[in-house]
Amino acid sequence: MEQIMIQGNVMVGQSGGPTSVINASLVGVFQAAREAGVTTVYGMRNGIEGLLKEEYVDLGKHITSDLDIELLKRTPSSFLGSCRFKLPDMRQDEKPYRRLFAILDKLNVKYVIYIGGNDSMDTIMKLSAYALSIKSEIRFMGVPKTIDNDLAETDHTPGYGSAAKYVASAMKEIICDSDVYNMESVTIVEIMGRNAGWLTAASALSKGEDCAGPDLICLPERPFDAELFLERIEKLRKEKKTVIAAVSEALRDKDGRYVCEGDVSPADAFGHKIITGSALYLSDLVRRRLGIKARGIVFNTLQRCASHLVSRRDMTEAFMAGSQAMRAALKGHSGEMVIFRRVSNEPYQILMETCDVYKIANTEKTVPDAWITQDGTGVTDAFLEYSRPLIIGELAPFMVGGLPRHLFLREE
Amino acid sequence: MEQIMIQGNVMVGQSGGPTSVINASLVGVFQAAREAGVTTVYGMRNGIEGLLKEEYVDLGKHITSDLDIELLKRTPSSFLGSCRFKLPDMRQDEKPYRRLFAILDKLNVKYVIYIGGNDSMDTIMKLSAYALSIKSEIRFMGVPKTIDNDLAETDHTPGYGSAAKYVASAMKEIICDSDVYNMESVTIVEIMGRNAGWLTAASALSKGEDCAGPDLICLPERPFDAELFLERIEKLRKEKKTVIAAVSEALRDKDGRYVCEGDVSPADAFGHKIITGSALYLSDLVRRRLGIKARGIVFNTLQRCASHLVSRRDMTEAFMAGSQAMRAALKGHSGEMVIFRRVSNEPYQILMETCDVYKIANTEKTVPDAWITQDGTGVTDAFLEYSRPLIIGELAPFMVGGLPRHLFLREE
Repeated sequence: MEQIMIQGNVMVGQSGGPTSVINASLVGVFQAAREAGVTTVYGMRNGIEGLLKEEYVDLGKHITSDLDIELLKRTPSSFLGSCRFKLPDMRQDEKPYRRLFAILDKLNVKYVIYIGGNDSMDTIMKLSAYALSIKSEIRFMGVPKTIDNDLAETDHTPGYGSAAKYVASAMKEIICDSDVYNMESVTIVEIMGRNAGWLTAASALSKGEDCAGPDLICLPERPFDAELFLERIEKLRKEKKTVIAAVSEALRDKDGRYVCEGDVSPADAFGHKIITGSALYLSDLVRRRLGIKARGIVFNTLQRCASHLVSRRDMTEAFMAGSQAMRAALKGHSGEMVIFRRVSNEPYQILMETCDVYKIANTEKTVPDAWITQDGTGVTDAFLEYSRPLIIGELAPFMVGGLPRHLFLREE
Repeated sequence: MEQIMIQGNVMVGQSGGPTSVINASLVGVFQAAREAGVTTVYGMRNGIEGLLKEEYVDLGKHITSDLDIELLKRTPSSFLGSCRFKLPDMRQDEKPYRRLFAILDKLNVKYVIYIGGNDSMDTIMKLSAYALSIKSEIRFMGVPKTIDNDLAETDHTPGYGSAAKYVASAMKEIICDSDVYNMESVTIVEIMGRNAGWLTAASALSKGEDCAGPDLICLPERPFDAELFLERIEKLRKEKKTVIAAVSEALRDKDGRYVCEGDVSPADAFGHKIITGSALYLSDLVRRRLGIKARGIVFNTLQRCASHLVSRRDMTEAFMAGSQAMRAALKGHSGEMVIFRRVSNEPYQILMETCDVYKIANTEKTVPDAWITQDGTGVTDAFLEYSRPLIIGELAPFMVGGLPRHLFLREE
């Protein structure tokens, strides 16, 4: 057992879109810090954005029992709240950095753990670089989190397995439902993933002994051709009564234009356009052009907050990633994120390591081209072998009065 | 124990929109028939519409083990397929009646059980009346089924409890998710129920120690005033960051016009217009008029096929309703539907009875006006006391490879 000298307190935050298991990472950080003997674990309210306004809580006052720990693991969304906040370049505007470090120093915080995706790793990268530049001893570590599974360097990200399990389970149920009337119909299911189709691809996991799976899977990695899409449906309707398509929320044509004209909101702080509406757009197109009954189903936030149907493996890995990041920080690591390296699929074995965060921040890992079928409307066995182990196992919610019980942050 | 003389075979069918527990009623019919000594239990493919084309299966060949029984209970959608088919008035067109009775006679069917809603009970009413008119001995019994809970005479309908549990659970998760960013937002959740708001009202069950519940609940029973709706949101945003509204899929103004102009398809065989889109319409209205970020979430078919999250009590009652209808038919009842009469809320006690189907066919039971708050944006404690017992208890899905396993009908 390594001897670790605790230098001060811990500040943990959650950032970006939530997942069903992001709070398991929070629990992992909290427990590892406590076990190491850290006096106080603070939690940023709404990430770095909240911390800049000195909004934080003493987590020990909110997680007071082993039951709280178990409830928190089963609570969807980010317990501490989240943000989409991008720090400026420190050479152009040093103020927020000075402010953050002053707050951290005041609280005697020596370890900052940030649970988030590639945008959040930008924050870790900048803060650790700033710490170096001012010779601060504060360590900054990242914990991967995103249902999009689009972080570089890591085999997969916590949050993806549970979202994939939800998508595949709901897809099975929708396919059962879609087939109920003896009439032609097309069902188009819209799944999250702006530029990476990992979660849309997970709809293929629904295929098995008792389910035919979706007929068409359209990922954002390939240019979308609406005419080819209609042609494929025309061909499929000759073979079967009901056609099921799983489509990414954001599909672009060969010129990079979004094919749907749904609900386009202004770009967020990281410059991402928020695009939704591909299912509604395409179901309308099918109705008009082919004259078939068509239905668009949008999973929307359900796919990232269905904590009543998580992958046990994902939950465990989310917890482990949090505790590993905490331990690495205590050992002196900074400017790194915990990553998973897959050793084998059968048996499923992974190793946890850490990786310099500059390799991860602001980059996106998309589905390899070789894992998409040649015609661009399906995924290969290699994808299925990769994703199948990630949805294994269940963790039952605590049901009270017939409903899942959650832990919520009481205002202090 | 009553001695029952079995007169012939059984034909069972499923009709109308599916539920998560409609197959439990099918199992109830099947097992009660088998226990009574019936030789063959036939299943109509796609209800009466399929039977008219002589499409049926021998259920005993498809349910061959106790494991099949348990899988079938956990399988969403209608195992036998469904239809929305209205029989003509026998005085105007006797042909389909002659055809159906010829098919039933050929198979020596003496008992027909139909699992469905108010439209399906129209079929039972007409067939039992026709049987009387030609002095046929075939008995026709109805089993209630609908997530809409809008059948007259019965305290509630199988299918409602599970859909209500799904709606309330998903609402809790959505509320957790909606609050994650420190910014103003409005989330509008659209719930099924054309003319009866029972399922939309069930969103109120999400309120509890750990959840504030929706802020506004708009049922189709009350005329919808978009201006008042916007006013309420304006007032709420001064009190809280995130506003949650649960709205019925079909809201009408005081003149009876649908307030949303969503996806309007041609009327179905029963003359119902298919209207969707109130969440998209209202979220767009909030964005435009109030300038707040607004999101529309549509549960769509997920609320009627989420067999991974059923109410155990609902499942048990669906099974009991099926077996009770079968037993009543064997005793000679015809032209009736099984109903539930509530004896008490605490402890929850119900009695099963049967009721003449003409009191039920083609009528709709809506939420009593006294159970809607005066301003029309919420439900009263009386509704909560009524609905709370219906969502109690769980039945875990059989998970295989991380996904719920279902039974499917193999083509013969």
